[in-house]
Amino acid sequence: MSATFFPQDIIIKKRDGGVLSKVEIDFFAHGVAEGTFKSYQASALLMAIFWRGMTPQETAWLTDAMLHSGEIIDLRDIPGAKVDKHSTGGVGDKVSLILAPLAAACGLKVPMMSGRGLGHTGGTLDKLEAIPGFRVTLSVAEFRAILQQVGAAMIGQTPQIAPADRKLYSLRDVTGTVECIPLICASIMSKKLAEGIDSLVLDVKFGRGAFMKSKERALELARAMVAIGQVSGKPVRALLTTMNQPLGRAAGHTTEVIEAIECLKGRGPADLMELTYALTGHMLILGGAAKDEASARRQLEAAIANGSALEKFRQMCVAQGGDPRVIDDYKILPTAKLFTEVRAPADAKGFVSEVDALKCGHAIMALGGGRAAVTDQIDHAVGIADLIKIGEPVGAGTRLCTLHLNDHAQSFRAEALIRDAIQFTPTAPTLEPLIQDLIQ
Amino acid sequence: MSATFFPQDIIIKKRDGGVLSKVEIDFFAHGVAEGTFKSYQASALLMAIFWRGMTPQETAWLTDAMLHSGEIIDLRDIPGAKVDKHSTGGVGDKVSLILAPLAAACGLKVPMMSGRGLGHTGGTLDKLEAIPGFRVTLSVAEFRAILQQVGAAMIGQTPQIAPADRKLYSLRDVTGTVECIPLICASIMSKKLAEGIDSLVLDVKFGRGAFMKSKERALELARAMVAIGQVSGKPVRALLTTMNQPLGRAAGHTTEVIEAIECLKGRGPADLMELTYALTGHMLILGGAAKDEASARRQLEAAIANGSALEKFRQMCVAQGGDPRVIDDYKILPTAKLFTEVRAPADAKGFVSEVDALKCGHAIMALGGGRAAVTDQIDHAVGIADLIKIGEPVGAGTRLCTLHLNDHAQSFRAEALIRDAIQFTPTAPTLEPLIQDLIQ
Repeated sequence: MSATFFPQDIIIKKRDGGVLSKVEIDFFAHGVAEGTFKSYQASALLMAIFWRGMTPQETAWLTDAMLHSGEIIDLRDIPGAKVDKHSTGGVGDKVSLILAPLAAACGLKVPMMSGRGLGHTGGTLDKLEAIPGFRVTLSVAEFRAILQQVGAAMIGQTPQIAPADRKLYSLRDVTGTVECIPLICASIMSKKLAEGIDSLVLDVKFGRGAFMKSKERALELARAMVAIGQVSGKPVRALLTTMNQPLGRAAGHTTEVIEAIECLKGRGPADLMELTYALTGHMLILGGAAKDEASARRQLEAAIANGSALEKFRQMCVAQGGDPRVIDDYKILPTAKLFTEVRAPADAKGFVSEVDALKCGHAIMALGGGRAAVTDQIDHAVGIADLIKIGEPVGAGTRLCTLHLNDHAQSFRAEALIRDAIQFTPTAPTLEPLIQDLIQ
Repeated sequence: MSATFFPQDIIIKKRDGGVLSKVEIDFFAHGVAEGTFKSYQASALLMAIFWRGMTPQETAWLTDAMLHSGEIIDLRDIPGAKVDKHSTGGVGDKVSLILAPLAAACGLKVPMMSGRGLGHTGGTLDKLEAIPGFRVTLSVAEFRAILQQVGAAMIGQTPQIAPADRKLYSLRDVTGTVECIPLICASIMSKKLAEGIDSLVLDVKFGRGAFMKSKERALELARAMVAIGQVSGKPVRALLTTMNQPLGRAAGHTTEVIEAIECLKGRGPADLMELTYALTGHMLILGGAAKDEASARRQLEAAIANGSALEKFRQMCVAQGGDPRVIDDYKILPTAKLFTEVRAPADAKGFVSEVDALKCGHAIMALGGGRAAVTDQIDHAVGIADLIKIGEPVGAGTRLCTLHLNDHAQSFRAEALIRDAIQFTPTAPTLEPLIQDLIQ
């Protein structure tokens, strides 16, 4: 890459509201990967982008440049439609654990690269690692082999994938440049396109427990990502979903793995199954395995009912080194020493009006089940189960949730957070729909 | 300094338009000097400051924090008023070389720390170094001794002075965050306050050859610096002056030293003397050596006429290791091999309407007399002399300037730039005043 210009010229152009050219964006992304665009120059440009934004074309170029800064997995020789799902993250979101084997049971190939939890949100890799022996670090050859044999493989981002994004992602975290739609969009899409997918379904969450607090911002992000998909020739559909209360009734790691397996056994909570069916349904449509949402839904329900989705989960577990006995014996998972039921006070009467996902996430952190910094260790055993949902009736002593904990001292702060998270109302509240929009 | 918060919290606060506290600004400035606030975080904050600005109070706190990041020279035991001048820089601005000995001849102490040239603007240190033997790197002890004995000493910024500014200044240069008034203001004022001055006169230039292109921006900068002076208890006056054409008739290094000595001998060009008298006059008033501009002017003219200002220049030259014979024999200065007169074309008739200072600066760079990067070597001998001024009459073959050069190949580009810089008009143009405003 010849330096026909200086990094500061590109920074100044964006600072003054200009539109960067493809050559300038390539110079930036490759320079970041190779170290010629210094971190202190990259962070100034990131802040200028945060300020001035990026056009759809600039965002597409940035995605493409980050994608091509590293290895792109070629899955064209593996038969079947390669379709993945990505969620912008929330509390209790274990959809991937159900969706990947479910989609595979319906004939898709799901090459899924996930992340770890940070702050109040959990991460798929951490949840998988609650299963004894489960390896999320696989070579590309292993990843391909499992994908081909099982139909679903779930791993972490390899160092060869989008190294420019890797550097910029960690830089954004410490320079106040995280919440910027073009940067978020390019980061997600460059990694997903590097997986070798044919198409992608996005779960763009908004609300108290989500990264995006407002529906407007979530819509903006969803549209930007769908647009990148169009430019890249990889169809992308996005569902806009609420994340005010945790998804399902469990949050944590062991507790969420149990809930995911329960879903695969046909005993999942309604909201979690609704979202899982919707997201997986759009994957089937994109992958050509179903002609519309209704027929997709029938296939998915059948794959749960006939046990084929659970069987795919078992196969994936075995292929990735995990102990498949967890499916039938949850005690094999890391198990907490103590269980505390949080119950409604004696004067409680009416309905649950709020279960604040952010506060629930903080409660899990208080139990030791989350990370404040990326280097923190997490306790897989702790978490929340049996969580009450918005709209459910409460009276004196109604169970609000069960806390799984390893240290009694933690329970006070966690319980206080849970009590603060759950609000009551005398009359039944109006329930807002979980799935609010489809962008395609 | 205890880290009660993270750098990114401060970045995010400013990014979102917040006002930083004194503690946060101290954490930033000291963290930059000590390396705990990383350069990639500092540059993101600098861009956020560029975007959101700083209140006068924030700017004052930043100045104070950068000032206290290093050594502050204490000159209180040296008798007399310590008054300095700072210019925001232009083309042909050799005022410091005349003003420092002139003010010393009128009884002031002038502790002057200057910079080097970069881009189209020249630097006082580079001009002084055209004098054989002249040392601009002195210990603080030497600086104090010369100041006491001679009354004027001219040196470069020592590494102990405002190290936070030193780091931020070099960072701003490569991250597109230079033209930001609070940052410029804090940078200049922290260094000037560290010199141990009692008061300060500023020459804030605007126009084609200046850093600030518009009078409005220059006024804003002048007001910000005067305000910092008030907060610090050091009276500051600022003159707003135009920088559309070069100051005087010479630009370069040897050529400017000669012109400065000519001024001290009473043979200086009108515009250069007007500005030098005005700036030095305000120094005398601030230092209590004159009661008003008229009486200051009389003292200054006398110091030129009776040779005492030239004598101060000679003493300073000797004290700093320079060869004082340059005063009487300009051939001792680095001398160019070739001299080319640029003359008006045969059809020229009328008056000079424009002498573009920026293009003249670029012509000097084309001759090898400027720096594109801070590490570039400069040729002191080359430059422009005998430059025609706006409003002067021209006819066929009128001399527009004399180029001093060492390589004939350079002359083509330099002459083309000069020809492009100088425009003619059939009727006498209206001359804009050089000094446009006084801010105090």
